[in-house]
Amino acid sequence: MARDIVISIDAMGGDSGPAAIVGGMVISASKNDEIRYIVHGDEAELRPLIEKQQALDGIVEIRHCDDVISMTEKPSRAMRSGKDSSMWGTLQTVEKGDATVAVSCGNTGALMAISMLRLRRAPGVDRPAIAVLWPSRGKTGHTVVLDVGADIRAEARDLVQYAIMGTEYARLDLNLDQPRVGLLNVGTEEHKGRAALHEAATLLESLAAEPDSGMRFVGFAEGSDIGTGEVDVIVTDGFTGNVALKTAEGTATLIHSFLREAMGHSVFSRIGALFALTSLRRLQKRLDPRRRNGGVFLGLNGAVVKSHGGADATGVSAAIKLAFRLAQNGFTQKVAERVAKAAEPNE
Amino acid sequence: MARDIVISIDAMGGDSGPAAIVGGMVISASKNDEIRYIVHGDEAELRPLIEKQQALDGIVEIRHCDDVISMTEKPSRAMRSGKDSSMWGTLQTVEKGDATVAVSCGNTGALMAISMLRLRRAPGVDRPAIAVLWPSRGKTGHTVVLDVGADIRAEARDLVQYAIMGTEYARLDLNLDQPRVGLLNVGTEEHKGRAALHEAATLLESLAAEPDSGMRFVGFAEGSDIGTGEVDVIVTDGFTGNVALKTAEGTATLIHSFLREAMGHSVFSRIGALFALTSLRRLQKRLDPRRRNGGVFLGLNGAVVKSHGGADATGVSAAIKLAFRLAQNGFTQKVAERVAKAAEPNE
Repeated sequence: MARDIVISIDAMGGDSGPAAIVGGMVISASKNDEIRYIVHGDEAELRPLIEKQQALDGIVEIRHCDDVISMTEKPSRAMRSGKDSSMWGTLQTVEKGDATVAVSCGNTGALMAISMLRLRRAPGVDRPAIAVLWPSRGKTGHTVVLDVGADIRAEARDLVQYAIMGTEYARLDLNLDQPRVGLLNVGTEEHKGRAALHEAATLLESLAAEPDSGMRFVGFAEGSDIGTGEVDVIVTDGFTGNVALKTAEGTATLIHSFLREAMGHSVFSRIGALFALTSLRRLQKRLDPRRRNGGVFLGLNGAVVKSHGGADATGVSAAIKLAFRLAQNGFTQKVAERVAKAAEPNE
Repeated sequence: MARDIVISIDAMGGDSGPAAIVGGMVISASKNDEIRYIVHGDEAELRPLIEKQQALDGIVEIRHCDDVISMTEKPSRAMRSGKDSSMWGTLQTVEKGDATVAVSCGNTGALMAISMLRLRRAPGVDRPAIAVLWPSRGKTGHTVVLDVGADIRAEARDLVQYAIMGTEYARLDLNLDQPRVGLLNVGTEEHKGRAALHEAATLLESLAAEPDSGMRFVGFAEGSDIGTGEVDVIVTDGFTGNVALKTAEGTATLIHSFLREAMGHSVFSRIGALFALTSLRRLQKRLDPRRRNGGVFLGLNGAVVKSHGGADATGVSAAIKLAFRLAQNGFTQKVAERVAKAAEPNE
């Protein structure tokens, strides 16, 4: 059995510590015999955790790092003084070509900053983006949304590149042939003022009209369209995307707490809650961020999967699975080709 | 009994037609003996609806209008050719001083455009804003969010004015003495790039530090903070606010449909759903936009309450109740004074 795909893992980044990361590696190793791991972190802490797992026997290399970048560290500081950290090591291993994909549960801002420094932007890309999978009522169960916070600005050209990168990601992770792409906007006539959006729409229309574009451009979408399943890829700037993502998380938390309150209100509703418990658990599972794949950094020379900071073993194994698929499919190269092709002048 | 407060109502705007508007007036009239109404719309349709309601006897004046502005009409067109519409008449009645407050369930964009034209911006206000009440886990049960779509741009000065106007609105509608105000931002260091937000934060810090400011400035807030109840007024530009509002609505719809699916999954969960039905209804009531007060237009020479397009009699009466309170408290004047005071150079 050939273990051809090497994944570089930051074992120290998350809230749950190295045990959750190693737990995720164990789950993945027991399901997938094509992965090898290069793990970065405190060797004294990692070696005993890894050695007691038979599933990881002979498929893990530990690279010791003295430092950890905390969840509250500022990105600019992490870039200046994070050279001995597990995050830095994880990305350097991809930079050197020892691994194809990086996985970290750490500080998103620091991870993006160090990724830009070590992996650098892919040729022709000005602004890398972070893409997430958003639960939806559509067939695939998810919508790709990007950028959710890599950069707070985006020109028309960046939005077009986000559309190209998001489309390629949706083709891979949602198994779609021709993802439907929408540009996030407001529903009033006043949006005329945001010139970048209108310029991007014009560019995307002609791009999608090419026979091998691999995307369908559906025009503008509103915030309420994100979860409907009518659009597969929602493109926006990182400021708006970040606010939308956090607003959705906040709304889910709010409804959850209202529901608990409502359920505890009378004897009948408590009995109802008991009966409905499995249903509610099923719902929670569906909305559970741990089960969603981690965010993906797009537009770099190398793939980076950001798992949720609070991810447990299940969450980490979902991130590893995504990393594996990105590596297996030559995702980074495909995206680079698409971006380069779109930049060519039309004949 | 003195019916001193006159409310100008657009009877034709909503999705549910004049019957819902008249129904709302009946509910309000039976609870409140200080309101009189000037109603705008098709007299032939309105007169019979109103005359058969004893509660409205002698307290309604009908002003006939030939036209209705549709929910899909573009604001720019409504401004040019809406002069004979019920919406136009409703605002003109406030402009002339015959009524203090306007209520409409119609097209938001058109309503804002015609409001700007007829009522004009309050002195010193560049950009009026639309404020909504957002359900929250806090004591008051709501957070004021503005701007949710009056203007897609906002400079630092506009954001400060939104904070002042939103604070005054929270004082009135949430009965708060010193509302806590937050500026919507993203959680990473990169937000440094949005200069307007940082400039606004500095201005709000010094404004809130004045002894009679009536607000507490809590700094930056994220999308996930909107419903927590930790902040009473969330300030943002109309593009971001509109996306956030619609994303939250979309998320609520998504969770509702997931919940229904989960509930129908097995016999046990169906029994559970039966028992839990009253709880779920209570939850729905809490999230029901009809029971939330309508959006309020701030920064004009006159108060305008925008009720939900799909509002029924209950929703319309909630909007009328809010309009009454705005009129009763001299809300427009108070806001104008606060805005003027903030513009004075500090000694």
